[in-house]
Amino acid sequence: MKIIESSQNMQSLALELKSLKQKLILVPTMGALHEGHLALVDQAKQLGDKVVLSVFVNPTQFGAGEDFEKYPRPLEKDQELAQARGVDYFFVPKASEVYPAGDQTVVMVTELSRGLCGAFRPGHFRGVATVVTKLFLICQPHAAVFGEKDYQQLQVIKRLAQDLHFPIKIIGVPTLREKDGLALSSRNAYLNTLQRQIALKLPQSLQWAVRAVQQGEQESRVIKEKIIQDLQDPQIKIDYIEVVDSETLEPLPKIKAQARLLAAIRVGETRLIDNLPLKL
Amino acid sequence: MKIIESSQNMQSLALELKSLKQKLILVPTMGALHEGHLALVDQAKQLGDKVVLSVFVNPTQFGAGEDFEKYPRPLEKDQELAQARGVDYFFVPKASEVYPAGDQTVVMVTELSRGLCGAFRPGHFRGVATVVTKLFLICQPHAAVFGEKDYQQLQVIKRLAQDLHFPIKIIGVPTLREKDGLALSSRNAYLNTLQRQIALKLPQSLQWAVRAVQQGEQESRVIKEKIIQDLQDPQIKIDYIEVVDSETLEPLPKIKAQARLLAAIRVGETRLIDNLPLKL
Repeated sequence: MKIIESSQNMQSLALELKSLKQKLILVPTMGALHEGHLALVDQAKQLGDKVVLSVFVNPTQFGAGEDFEKYPRPLEKDQELAQARGVDYFFVPKASEVYPAGDQTVVMVTELSRGLCGAFRPGHFRGVATVVTKLFLICQPHAAVFGEKDYQQLQVIKRLAQDLHFPIKIIGVPTLREKDGLALSSRNAYLNTLQRQIALKLPQSLQWAVRAVQQGEQESRVIKEKIIQDLQDPQIKIDYIEVVDSETLEPLPKIKAQARLLAAIRVGETRLIDNLPLKL
Repeated sequence: MKIIESSQNMQSLALELKSLKQKLILVPTMGALHEGHLALVDQAKQLGDKVVLSVFVNPTQFGAGEDFEKYPRPLEKDQELAQARGVDYFFVPKASEVYPAGDQTVVMVTELSRGLCGAFRPGHFRGVATVVTKLFLICQPHAAVFGEKDYQQLQVIKRLAQDLHFPIKIIGVPTLREKDGLALSSRNAYLNTLQRQIALKLPQSLQWAVRAVQQGEQESRVIKEKIIQDLQDPQIKIDYIEVVDSETLEPLPKIKAQARLLAAIRVGETRLIDNLPLKL
Protein backbone atom coordinates (compact mmCIF):
# COMPACT_ATOMS: atom_id res chain seq x y z
CA MET A 1 0.00 0.00 0.00
CA LYS A 2 1.32 3.39 -1.02
CA ILE A 3 0.73 6.37 1.26
CA ILE A 4 0.06 9.61 -0.59
CA GLU A 5 -0.09 12.94 1.21
CA SER A 6 0.15 15.36 -1.70
CA SER A 7 -2.93 16.15 -3.77
CA GLN A 8 -0.74 16.87 -6.78
CA ASN A 9 0.98 13.49 -6.57
CA MET A 10 -2.40 11.83 -6.21
CA GLN A 11 -3.72 13.61 -9.29
CA SER A 12 -0.65 12.79 -11.39
CA LEU A 13 -0.96 9.16 -10.40
CA ALA A 14 -4.70 9.18 -11.16
CA LEU A 15 -4.20 10.69 -14.61
CA GLU A 16 -1.42 8.20 -15.33
CA LEU A 17 -3.70 5.28 -14.34
CA LYS A 18 -6.42 6.77 -16.56
CA SER A 19 -4.12 6.93 -19.57
CA LEU A 20 -3.28 3.27 -18.90
CA LYS A 21 -7.03 2.51 -18.82
CA GLN A 22 -6.65 1.20 -15.27
CA LYS A 23 -9.85 1.61 -13.28
CA LEU A 24 -9.27 3.43 -10.00
CA ILE A 25 -12.02 3.14 -7.40
CA LEU A 26 -12.33 5.78 -4.70
CA VAL A 27 -13.51 5.15 -1.14
CA PRO A 28 -13.76 8.59 0.49
CA THR A 29 -13.79 8.49 4.30
CA MET A 30 -13.16 10.70 7.31
CA GLY A 31 -11.08 7.92 8.85
CA ALA A 32 -11.79 6.24 12.20
CA LEU A 33 -12.30 3.20 10.02
CA HIS A 34 -14.63 0.43 11.09
CA GLU A 35 -15.99 -2.68 9.39
CA GLY A 36 -18.52 -0.50 7.53
CA HIS A 37 -15.74 1.37 5.73
CA LEU A 38 -13.91 -1.88 5.07
CA ALA A 39 -17.05 -3.29 3.42
CA LEU A 40 -16.79 -0.30 1.05
CA VAL A 41 -13.22 -1.33 0.29
CA ASP A 42 -14.37 -4.89 -0.44
CA GLN A 43 -16.98 -3.51 -2.83
CA ALA A 44 -14.39 -1.20 -4.44
CA LYS A 45 -12.06 -4.13 -5.08
CA GLN A 46 -14.85 -5.82 -7.07
CA LEU A 47 -15.30 -2.75 -9.27
CA GLY A 48 -11.85 -1.90 -10.56
CA ASP A 49 -8.12 -2.40 -10.75
CA LYS A 50 -6.88 -0.18 -7.95
CA VAL A 51 -8.50 1.12 -4.77
CA VAL A 52 -7.73 4.50 -3.24
CA LEU A 53 -9.04 5.12 0.27
CA SER A 54 -8.98 8.76 1.27
CA VAL A 55 -8.96 9.91 4.88
CA PHE A 56 -9.91 13.55 5.28
CA VAL A 57 -11.85 15.06 8.17
CA ASN A 58 -13.43 17.79 6.09
CA PRO A 59 -13.76 20.99 8.13
CA THR A 60 -16.41 22.58 5.88
CA GLN A 61 -19.01 19.92 6.56
CA PHE A 62 -18.97 20.49 10.32
CA GLY A 63 -21.15 23.28 11.69
CA ALA A 64 -20.31 25.60 14.58
CA GLY A 65 -20.55 23.63 17.81
CA GLU A 66 -20.33 20.27 16.05
CA ASP A 67 -17.66 17.64 16.72
CA PHE A 68 -14.93 18.64 14.24
CA GLU A 69 -12.30 19.01 16.97
CA LYS A 70 -13.13 15.84 18.84
CA TYR A 71 -13.80 13.68 15.76
CA PRO A 72 -11.55 10.61 16.20
CA ARG A 73 -8.34 10.55 14.11
CA PRO A 74 -6.60 7.19 14.75
CA LEU A 75 -4.48 7.51 11.62
CA GLU A 76 -1.99 4.72 12.32
CA LYS A 77 -4.71 2.22 13.05
CA ASP A 78 -6.60 3.35 9.94
CA GLN A 79 -3.49 2.77 7.87
CA GLU A 80 -3.08 -0.75 9.23
CA LEU A 81 -6.72 -1.60 8.61
CA ALA A 82 -6.59 -0.27 5.06
CA GLN A 83 -3.40 -2.17 4.28
CA ALA A 84 -4.77 -5.40 5.73
CA ARG A 85 -7.90 -5.05 3.59
CA GLY A 86 -5.95 -4.62 0.35
CA VAL A 87 -6.19 -0.87 -0.29
CA ASP A 88 -3.67 0.18 -2.96
CA TYR A 89 -3.40 3.90 -2.16
CA PHE A 90 -3.95 5.47 1.24
CA PHE A 91 -4.59 9.14 0.45
CA VAL A 92 -4.33 11.58 3.36
CA PRO A 93 -4.51 15.06 1.84
CA LYS A 94 -3.66 18.19 3.77
CA ALA A 95 -6.46 20.68 4.39
CA SER A 96 -4.23 23.44 3.03
CA GLU A 97 -4.09 21.65 -0.32
CA VAL A 98 -7.73 20.62 -0.50
CA TYR A 99 -8.65 24.21 0.35
CA PRO A 100 -5.84 26.32 -1.13
CA ALA A 101 -5.17 29.86 0.10
CA GLY A 102 -8.00 32.12 -1.05
CA ASP A 103 -10.32 29.17 -1.68
CA GLN A 104 -13.87 30.40 -2.30
CA THR A 105 -15.51 27.90 -4.65
CA VAL A 106 -18.51 25.99 -3.31
CA VAL A 107 -20.72 23.31 -4.78
CA MET A 108 -24.33 22.91 -3.70
CA VAL A 109 -26.99 20.37 -4.51
CA THR A 110 -29.91 22.58 -3.65
CA GLU A 111 -33.22 20.71 -3.14
CA LEU A 112 -31.75 17.44 -1.85
CA SER A 113 -29.68 19.31 0.75
CA ARG A 114 -32.56 21.26 2.22
CA GLY A 115 -34.54 18.85 4.40
CA LEU A 116 -33.72 16.02 6.83
CA CYS A 117 -30.13 16.37 8.11
CA GLY A 118 -29.72 19.50 5.97
CA ALA A 119 -32.34 21.29 8.07
CA PHE A 120 -30.47 20.47 11.29
CA ARG A 121 -26.94 20.93 9.96
CA PRO A 122 -26.94 24.12 7.85
CA GLY A 123 -24.09 24.11 5.35
CA HIS A 124 -23.29 20.44 5.96
CA PHE A 125 -24.17 19.14 2.49
CA ARG A 126 -22.61 22.16 0.85
CA GLY A 127 -19.38 21.12 2.59
CA VAL A 128 -19.89 17.51 1.51
CA ALA A 129 -20.66 18.41 -2.12
CA THR A 130 -17.68 20.74 -2.28
CA VAL A 131 -15.14 18.31 -0.83
CA VAL A 132 -16.44 15.38 -2.87
CA THR A 133 -16.12 17.46 -6.05
CA LYS A 134 -12.53 18.24 -5.10
CA LEU A 135 -11.73 14.60 -4.25
CA PHE A 136 -13.29 13.43 -7.52
CA LEU A 137 -11.13 15.87 -9.48
CA ILE A 138 -7.97 15.02 -7.56
CA CYS A 139 -8.47 11.24 -7.74
CA GLN A 140 -10.27 11.03 -11.13
CA PRO A 141 -11.79 7.67 -10.20
CA HIS A 142 -13.79 5.36 -12.43
CA ALA A 143 -16.24 4.81 -9.56
CA ALA A 144 -16.69 5.93 -5.97
CA VAL A 145 -18.22 3.92 -3.13
CA PHE A 146 -20.31 5.38 -0.29
CA GLY A 147 -22.25 3.84 2.57
CA GLU A 148 -26.05 3.91 2.59
CA LYS A 149 -25.85 4.79 6.28
CA ASP A 150 -25.42 8.42 5.21
CA TYR A 151 -28.36 8.06 2.88
CA GLN A 152 -29.05 11.72 2.15
CA GLN A 153 -25.35 12.23 1.46
CA LEU A 154 -25.42 9.34 -1.02
CA GLN A 155 -28.36 10.88 -2.89
CA VAL A 156 -26.70 14.32 -2.88
CA ILE A 157 -23.55 12.83 -4.39
CA LYS A 158 -25.42 10.79 -7.00
CA ARG A 159 -27.26 13.95 -8.08
CA LEU A 160 -24.03 15.98 -8.10
CA ALA A 161 -22.24 13.42 -10.27
CA GLN A 162 -25.11 13.33 -12.73
CA ASP A 163 -25.68 17.09 -12.89
CA LEU A 164 -22.02 18.04 -13.27
CA HIS A 165 -21.32 15.18 -15.73
CA PHE A 166 -18.66 13.44 -13.70
CA PRO A 167 -17.72 10.26 -15.62
CA ILE A 168 -17.84 8.42 -12.28
CA LYS A 169 -20.18 5.67 -11.12
CA ILE A 170 -21.56 6.26 -7.63
CA ILE A 171 -22.09 3.04 -5.73
CA GLY A 172 -24.06 2.76 -2.50
CA VAL A 173 -23.34 -0.07 -0.07
CA PRO A 174 -25.93 -1.26 2.50
CA THR A 175 -25.30 -0.32 6.12
CA LEU A 176 -23.31 -2.70 8.28
CA ARG A 177 -24.64 -3.26 11.80
CA GLU A 178 -23.51 -4.56 15.16
CA LYS A 179 -25.03 -7.91 16.13
CA ASP A 180 -27.71 -6.08 18.10
CA GLY A 181 -28.67 -3.95 15.09
CA LEU A 182 -26.94 -0.61 15.78
CA ALA A 183 -25.57 0.84 12.53
CA LEU A 184 -21.78 1.02 12.50
CA SER A 185 -20.59 4.60 12.87
CA SER A 186 -17.39 6.31 13.95
CA ARG A 187 -19.55 8.39 16.28
CA ASN A 188 -20.71 5.30 18.24
CA ALA A 189 -17.41 5.65 20.10
CA TYR A 190 -18.83 8.74 21.83
CA LEU A 191 -21.56 6.67 23.56
CA ASN A 192 -21.21 5.45 27.15
CA THR A 193 -22.59 2.02 28.11
CA LEU A 194 -26.04 3.29 29.03
CA GLN A 195 -26.29 5.49 25.94
CA ARG A 196 -25.15 2.59 23.79
CA GLN A 197 -28.12 0.63 25.16
CA ILE A 198 -30.57 3.47 24.59
CA ALA A 199 -29.25 4.02 21.04
CA LEU A 200 -30.57 0.57 20.15
CA LYS A 201 -34.08 1.98 20.11
CA LEU A 202 -33.24 3.63 16.77
CA PRO A 203 -32.63 0.47 14.67
CA GLN A 204 -35.38 -1.32 16.58
CA SER A 205 -37.88 1.37 15.56
CA LEU A 206 -36.83 1.16 11.93
CA GLN A 207 -37.12 -2.62 11.96
CA TRP A 208 -40.55 -2.35 13.55
CA ALA A 209 -41.62 -0.01 10.73
CA VAL A 210 -40.49 -2.47 8.05
CA ARG A 211 -42.60 -5.18 9.70
CA ALA A 212 -45.58 -2.85 10.04
CA VAL A 213 -45.45 -2.09 6.32
CA GLN A 214 -45.12 -5.81 5.55
CA GLN A 215 -48.28 -6.30 7.61
CA GLY A 216 -50.15 -3.74 5.54
CA GLU A 217 -49.58 -0.32 7.15
CA GLN A 218 -49.72 2.35 4.43
CA GLU A 219 -49.82 5.63 6.36
CA SER A 220 -46.51 7.36 6.98
CA ARG A 221 -48.14 9.41 9.73
CA VAL A 222 -49.02 6.28 11.71
CA ILE A 223 -45.50 4.93 11.43
CA LYS A 224 -43.88 8.21 12.40
CA GLU A 225 -46.16 8.71 15.42
CA LYS A 226 -45.49 5.22 16.74
CA ILE A 227 -41.72 5.64 16.35
CA ILE A 228 -41.77 9.01 18.10
CA GLN A 229 -43.59 7.29 20.97
CA ASP A 230 -41.14 4.38 21.07
CA LEU A 231 -38.17 6.74 21.16
CA GLN A 232 -39.45 8.59 24.22
CA ASP A 233 -36.50 8.69 26.60
CA PRO A 234 -34.94 11.42 28.74
CA GLN A 235 -31.62 10.86 26.93
CA ILE A 236 -33.07 10.95 23.38
CA LYS A 237 -33.83 14.04 21.30
CA ILE A 238 -35.40 13.35 17.92
CA ASP A 239 -34.16 15.50 15.03
CA TYR A 240 -36.50 13.89 12.51
CA ILE A 241 -38.32 10.71 11.55
CA GLU A 242 -39.37 10.87 7.90
CA VAL A 243 -40.74 8.59 5.20
CA VAL A 244 -39.37 9.80 1.87
CA ASP A 245 -38.98 8.87 -1.76
CA SER A 246 -35.66 7.03 -1.92
CA GLU A 247 -34.36 9.13 -4.81
CA THR A 248 -35.83 12.63 -4.50
CA LEU A 249 -36.09 12.46 -0.67
CA GLU A 250 -39.50 14.13 -0.92
CA PRO A 251 -41.75 13.24 2.07
CA LEU A 252 -44.31 10.55 1.20
CA PRO A 253 -47.68 10.58 3.00
CA LYS A 254 -48.42 7.07 1.70
CA ILE A 255 -45.94 4.19 1.65
CA LYS A 256 -45.04 3.17 -1.90
CA ALA A 257 -42.43 0.92 -3.50
CA GLN A 258 -39.67 3.54 -3.35
CA ALA A 259 -40.35 4.54 0.25
CA ARG A 260 -37.48 4.80 2.71
CA LEU A 261 -37.54 5.62 6.39
CA LEU A 262 -34.84 8.04 7.52
CA ALA A 263 -34.21 9.06 11.10
CA ALA A 264 -31.82 11.19 13.12
CA ILE A 265 -31.70 11.37 16.89
CA ARG A 266 -29.38 12.65 19.52
CA VAL A 267 -28.43 10.43 22.44
CA GLY A 268 -26.85 12.80 24.91
CA GLU A 269 -24.43 14.83 22.81
CA THR A 270 -24.07 12.19 20.12
CA ARG A 271 -25.98 12.50 16.86
CA LEU A 272 -26.96 9.16 15.31
CA ILE A 273 -28.62 8.55 11.95
CA ASP A 274 -30.08 5.44 10.41
CA ASN A 275 -32.39 4.44 7.57
CA LEU A 276 -34.05 1.46 5.95
CA PRO A 277 -36.07 0.79 2.81
CA LEU A 278 -39.70 0.21 3.81
CA LYS A 279 -40.46 -2.18 0.97
CA LEU A 280 -38.15 -4.87 -0.31
CA MET B 1 -14.44 19.36 -38.51
CA LYS B 2 -16.70 17.01 -36.63
CA ILE B 3 -20.01 18.29 -35.31
CA ILE B 4 -20.98 16.85 -31.94
CA GLU B 5 -24.42 17.43 -30.44
CA SER B 6 -24.46 14.80 -27.68
CA SER B 7 -22.71 15.46 -24.40
CA GLN B 8 -22.16 11.76 -23.93
CA ASN B 9 -20.44 11.39 -27.29
CA MET B 10 -18.31 14.41 -26.50
CA GLN B 11 -17.27 12.93 -23.16
CA SER B 12 -16.46 9.52 -24.65
CA LEU B 13 -14.34 11.19 -27.31
CA ALA B 14 -12.63 13.37 -24.69
CA LEU B 15 -11.78 10.40 -22.48
CA GLU B 16 -10.51 8.48 -25.49
CA LEU B 17 -8.23 11.39 -26.47
CA LYS B 18 -7.02 11.55 -22.87
CA SER B 19 -6.09 7.88 -22.83
CA LEU B 20 -4.16 8.51 -26.06
CA LYS B 21 -2.40 11.43 -24.31
CA GLN B 22 -3.73 13.79 -26.98
CA LYS B 23 -4.15 17.32 -25.64
CA LEU B 24 -7.64 18.65 -26.22
CA ILE B 25 -8.07 22.43 -25.88
CA LEU B 26 -11.51 23.85 -25.14
CA VAL B 27 -12.82 27.19 -26.40
CA PRO B 28 -16.19 27.68 -24.69
CA THR B 29 -18.43 30.26 -26.41
CA MET B 30 -22.05 31.32 -26.65
CA GLY B 31 -21.72 31.44 -30.44
CA ALA B 32 -22.30 34.53 -32.61
CA LEU B 33 -18.63 34.12 -33.34
CA HIS B 34 -16.49 37.11 -34.24
CA GLU B 35 -12.78 37.64 -34.73
CA GLY B 36 -12.34 37.75 -30.93
CA HIS B 37 -13.52 34.17 -30.59
CA LEU B 38 -11.42 33.12 -33.55
CA ALA B 39 -8.34 34.58 -31.87
CA LEU B 40 -9.12 32.20 -28.99
CA VAL B 41 -9.14 29.35 -31.50
CA ASP B 42 -5.75 30.46 -32.86
CA GLN B 43 -4.40 30.46 -29.31
CA ALA B 44 -5.96 27.04 -28.64
CA LYS B 45 -4.27 25.57 -31.71
CA GLN B 46 -0.90 26.61 -30.27
CA LEU B 47 -1.61 24.84 -27.00
CA GLY B 48 -2.61 21.31 -27.95
CA ASP B 49 -3.40 18.63 -30.47
CA LYS B 50 -7.13 19.10 -30.99
CA VAL B 51 -9.43 22.07 -30.52
CA VAL B 52 -13.06 21.80 -29.43
CA LEU B 53 -15.18 24.92 -29.77
CA SER B 54 -18.42 24.74 -27.82
CA VAL B 55 -21.45 26.87 -28.65
CA PHE B 56 -23.97 27.02 -25.85
CA VAL B 57 -26.15 29.99 -24.95
CA ASN B 58 -26.30 29.16 -21.27
CA PRO B 59 -29.73 30.05 -19.85
CA THR B 60 -28.58 30.11 -16.20
CA GLN B 61 -26.19 33.01 -16.68
CA PHE B 62 -28.91 35.35 -17.97
CA GLY B 63 -31.02 37.19 -15.43
CA ALA B 64 -34.73 38.01 -15.67
CA GLY B 65 -35.19 40.76 -18.26
CA GLU B 66 -31.79 40.15 -19.84
CA ASP B 67 -31.23 39.24 -23.49
CA PHE B 68 -31.36 35.42 -23.39
CA GLU B 69 -34.19 35.27 -25.93
CA LYS B 70 -32.77 37.79 -28.37
CA TYR B 71 -29.13 36.70 -28.02
CA PRO B 72 -27.95 36.05 -31.62
CA ARG B 73 -27.73 32.37 -32.68
CA PRO B 74 -26.31 32.29 -36.23
CA LEU B 75 -25.36 28.62 -35.93
CA GLU B 76 -24.65 27.90 -39.62
CA LYS B 77 -22.37 30.89 -39.94
CA ASP B 78 -20.63 29.94 -36.67
CA GLN B 79 -20.03 26.47 -38.03
CA GLU B 80 -18.47 27.83 -41.21
CA LEU B 81 -16.23 30.24 -39.30
CA ALA B 82 -15.08 27.50 -36.93
CA GLN B 83 -14.34 25.11 -39.77
CA ALA B 84 -12.42 27.76 -41.72
CA ARG B 85 -10.31 28.51 -38.63
CA GLY B 86 -9.33 24.88 -38.13
CA VAL B 87 -11.52 23.82 -35.21
CA ASP B 88 -11.52 20.01 -34.87
CA TYR B 89 -14.76 19.52 -32.92
CA PHE B 90 -17.76 21.84 -33.03
CA PHE B 91 -19.69 20.96 -29.87
CA VAL B 92 -23.29 22.17 -29.71
CA PRO B 93 -24.80 20.53 -26.61
CA LYS B 94 -28.52 20.54 -25.92
CA ALA B 95 -29.71 22.41 -22.83
CA SER B 96 -31.63 19.31 -21.77
CA GLU B 97 -28.36 17.38 -21.57
CA VAL B 98 -26.26 20.09 -19.96
CA TYR B 99 -29.04 20.54 -17.39
CA PRO B 100 -30.62 17.07 -17.06
CA ALA B 101 -34.15 16.64 -15.68
CA GLY B 102 -34.08 17.42 -11.95
CA ASP B 103 -30.78 19.32 -12.20
CA GLN B 104 -30.07 21.17 -8.97
CA THR B 105 -26.30 21.35 -8.61
CA VAL B 106 -24.72 24.79 -8.63
CA VAL B 107 -21.15 26.00 -8.41
CA MET B 108 -20.28 29.40 -6.96
CA VAL B 109 -17.06 31.33 -6.66
CA THR B 110 -18.17 33.51 -3.81
CA GLU B 111 -16.02 36.63 -3.27
CA LEU B 112 -14.96 37.14 -6.89
CA SER B 113 -18.58 36.97 -8.07
CA ARG B 114 -19.89 39.58 -5.67
CA GLY B 115 -18.84 42.96 -7.02
CA LEU B 116 -18.54 44.60 -10.45
CA CYS B 117 -20.79 42.79 -12.97
CA GLY B 118 -21.90 40.41 -10.22
CA ALA B 119 -23.56 43.27 -8.36
CA PHE B 120 -25.57 44.25 -11.44
CA ARG B 121 -26.29 40.74 -12.69
CA PRO B 122 -27.28 38.64 -9.64
CA GLY B 123 -26.72 34.94 -10.30
CA HIS B 124 -24.74 35.57 -13.48
CA PHE B 125 -21.40 34.18 -12.28
CA ARG B 126 -23.10 31.33 -10.50
CA GLY B 127 -24.52 30.39 -13.92
CA VAL B 128 -21.11 30.84 -15.52
CA ALA B 129 -19.27 28.80 -12.87
CA THR B 130 -21.86 26.03 -13.07
CA VAL B 131 -21.86 25.71 -16.86
CA VAL B 132 -18.07 25.94 -17.10
CA THR B 133 -17.74 23.13 -14.52
CA LYS B 134 -20.10 21.02 -16.60
CA LEU B 135 -18.29 21.80 -19.87
CA PHE B 136 -14.93 21.03 -18.25
CA LEU B 137 -16.23 17.64 -17.09
CA ILE B 138 -17.87 16.83 -20.42
CA CYS B 139 -14.87 17.90 -22.53
CA GLN B 140 -12.06 16.98 -20.09
CA PRO B 141 -9.69 19.42 -21.79
CA HIS B 142 -5.99 19.89 -21.13
CA ALA B 143 -6.51 23.65 -21.28
CA ALA B 144 -9.35 26.11 -21.86
CA VAL B 145 -9.12 29.52 -23.48
CA PHE B 146 -11.17 32.58 -22.51
CA GLY B 147 -11.16 36.21 -23.61
CA GLU B 148 -9.91 38.95 -21.28
CA LYS B 149 -12.86 41.05 -22.44
CA ASP B 150 -14.95 39.24 -19.82
CA TYR B 151 -12.27 39.87 -17.25
CA GLN B 152 -14.22 39.11 -14.08
CA GLN B 153 -15.42 35.87 -15.68
CA LEU B 154 -11.81 34.92 -16.46
CA GLN B 155 -10.78 35.45 -12.83
CA VAL B 156 -13.82 33.51 -11.57
CA ILE B 157 -12.91 30.58 -13.81
CA LYS B 158 -9.21 30.65 -12.87
CA ARG B 159 -10.20 30.54 -9.20
CA LEU B 160 -12.74 27.78 -9.79
CA ALA B 161 -10.21 25.62 -11.63
CA GLN B 162 -7.66 26.07 -8.86
CA ASP B 163 -10.07 25.55 -5.96
CA LEU B 164 -11.77 22.46 -7.38
CA HIS B 165 -8.45 20.96 -8.61
CA PHE B 166 -9.34 20.77 -12.28
CA PRO B 167 -6.22 19.52 -14.10
CA ILE B 168 -6.90 22.21 -16.72
CA LYS B 169 -4.83 25.26 -17.63
CA ILE B 170 -6.90 28.43 -17.93
CA ILE B 171 -5.57 30.78 -20.59
CA GLY B 172 -6.67 34.39 -21.00
CA VAL B 173 -6.36 36.10 -24.39
CA PRO B 174 -6.20 39.92 -24.73
CA THR B 175 -9.30 41.66 -26.09
CA LEU B 176 -9.59 42.18 -29.83
CA ARG B 177 -10.89 45.57 -30.93
CA GLU B 178 -12.40 47.27 -33.96
CA LYS B 179 -10.08 49.75 -35.69
CA ASP B 180 -11.65 52.59 -33.72
CA GLY B 181 -11.02 50.80 -30.41
CA LEU B 182 -14.42 49.27 -29.54
CA ALA B 183 -13.95 45.84 -27.97
CA LEU B 184 -15.35 43.06 -30.16
CA SER B 185 -18.55 41.66 -28.65
CA SER B 186 -21.50 39.71 -29.94
CA ARG B 187 -23.68 42.35 -28.29
CA ASN B 188 -22.27 45.15 -30.48
CA ALA B 189 -24.79 43.91 -33.08
CA TYR B 190 -27.56 45.39 -30.91
CA LEU B 191 -26.21 48.97 -31.39
CA ASN B 192 -27.64 51.36 -33.99
CA THR B 193 -25.32 53.73 -35.85
CA LEU B 194 -25.61 56.55 -33.33
CA GLN B 195 -25.22 54.20 -30.34
CA ARG B 196 -22.20 52.60 -32.03
CA GLN B 197 -20.63 56.08 -32.14
CA ILE B 198 -21.48 56.83 -28.52
CA ALA B 199 -20.15 53.41 -27.39
CA LEU B 200 -16.68 54.52 -28.46
CA LYS B 201 -16.49 56.71 -25.39
CA LEU B 202 -15.91 53.55 -23.36
CA PRO B 203 -12.58 52.41 -24.87
CA GLN B 204 -11.52 56.05 -25.25
CA SER B 205 -11.97 56.59 -21.49
CA LEU B 206 -9.97 53.47 -20.69
CA GLN B 207 -7.18 54.54 -23.00
CA TRP B 208 -7.16 57.99 -21.45
CA ALA B 209 -6.77 56.37 -18.03
CA VAL B 210 -3.76 54.34 -19.17
CA ARG B 211 -2.11 57.53 -20.41
CA ALA B 212 -2.97 59.39 -17.22
CA VAL B 213 -1.29 56.68 -15.16
CA GLN B 214 1.73 56.76 -17.48
CA GLN B 215 1.91 60.51 -16.79
CA GLY B 216 1.96 59.90 -13.06
CA GLU B 217 -1.65 59.80 -11.85
CA GLN B 218 -1.86 57.53 -8.79
CA GLU B 219 -5.34 58.16 -7.40
CA SER B 220 -8.07 55.79 -8.52
CA ARG B 221 -10.66 58.33 -7.41
CA VAL B 222 -9.33 60.97 -9.81
CA ILE B 223 -9.41 58.54 -12.71
CA LYS B 224 -12.90 57.32 -11.93
CA GLU B 225 -14.31 60.83 -11.56
CA LYS B 226 -12.83 61.99 -14.85
CA ILE B 227 -14.21 58.93 -16.67
CA ILE B 228 -17.66 59.40 -15.19
CA GLN B 229 -17.55 62.97 -16.49
CA ASP B 230 -16.36 61.90 -19.94
CA LEU B 231 -19.11 59.29 -20.22
CA GLN B 232 -21.88 61.85 -19.57
CA ASP B 233 -24.42 61.27 -22.34
CA PRO B 234 -28.21 60.95 -22.40
CA GLN B 235 -27.84 57.51 -23.99
CA ILE B 236 -25.25 56.18 -21.49
CA LYS B 237 -25.92 54.68 -18.08
CA ILE B 238 -22.83 53.73 -16.09
CA ASP B 239 -23.03 50.45 -14.15
CA TYR B 240 -19.55 50.82 -12.70
CA ILE B 241 -16.05 52.19 -13.25
CA GLU B 242 -13.58 50.49 -10.93
CA VAL B 243 -9.84 50.21 -10.41
CA VAL B 244 -9.14 46.75 -9.00
CA ASP B 245 -6.41 44.27 -8.25
CA SER B 246 -6.12 42.19 -11.40
CA GLU B 247 -6.32 38.89 -9.53
CA THR B 248 -8.52 39.38 -6.46
CA LEU B 249 -10.63 42.14 -8.10
CA GLU B 250 -10.50 44.05 -4.80
CA PRO B 251 -10.92 47.83 -5.35
CA LEU B 252 -7.62 49.71 -5.20
CA PRO B 253 -7.56 53.30 -3.93
CA LYS B 254 -3.99 53.75 -5.24
CA ILE B 255 -2.76 52.57 -8.63
CA LYS B 256 -0.17 49.80 -8.31
CA ALA B 257 1.51 47.35 -10.66
CA GLN B 258 -1.38 44.89 -10.67
CA ALA B 259 -4.07 47.54 -11.17
CA ARG B 260 -6.72 47.03 -13.82
CA LEU B 261 -9.54 49.34 -14.85
CA LEU B 262 -12.89 47.61 -15.38
CA ALA B 263 -16.00 49.31 -16.67
CA ALA B 264 -19.57 48.44 -17.59
CA ILE B 265 -22.04 50.83 -19.20
CA ARG B 266 -25.35 50.61 -20.93
CA VAL B 267 -25.87 52.35 -24.24
CA GLY B 268 -29.63 52.33 -24.71
CA GLU B 269 -30.62 48.76 -23.91
CA THR B 270 -27.20 47.31 -24.69
CA ARG B 271 -24.78 46.46 -21.90
CA LEU B 272 -21.12 46.86 -22.84
CA ILE B 273 -18.08 45.95 -20.76
CA ASP B 274 -14.41 46.68 -21.27
CA ASN B 275 -11.17 46.67 -19.28
CA LEU B 276 -7.48 47.45 -19.54
CA PRO B 277 -4.40 46.98 -17.36
CA LEU B 278 -3.35 50.38 -16.00
CA LYS B 279 0.35 49.57 -15.89
CA LEU B 280 2.23 47.66 -18.56
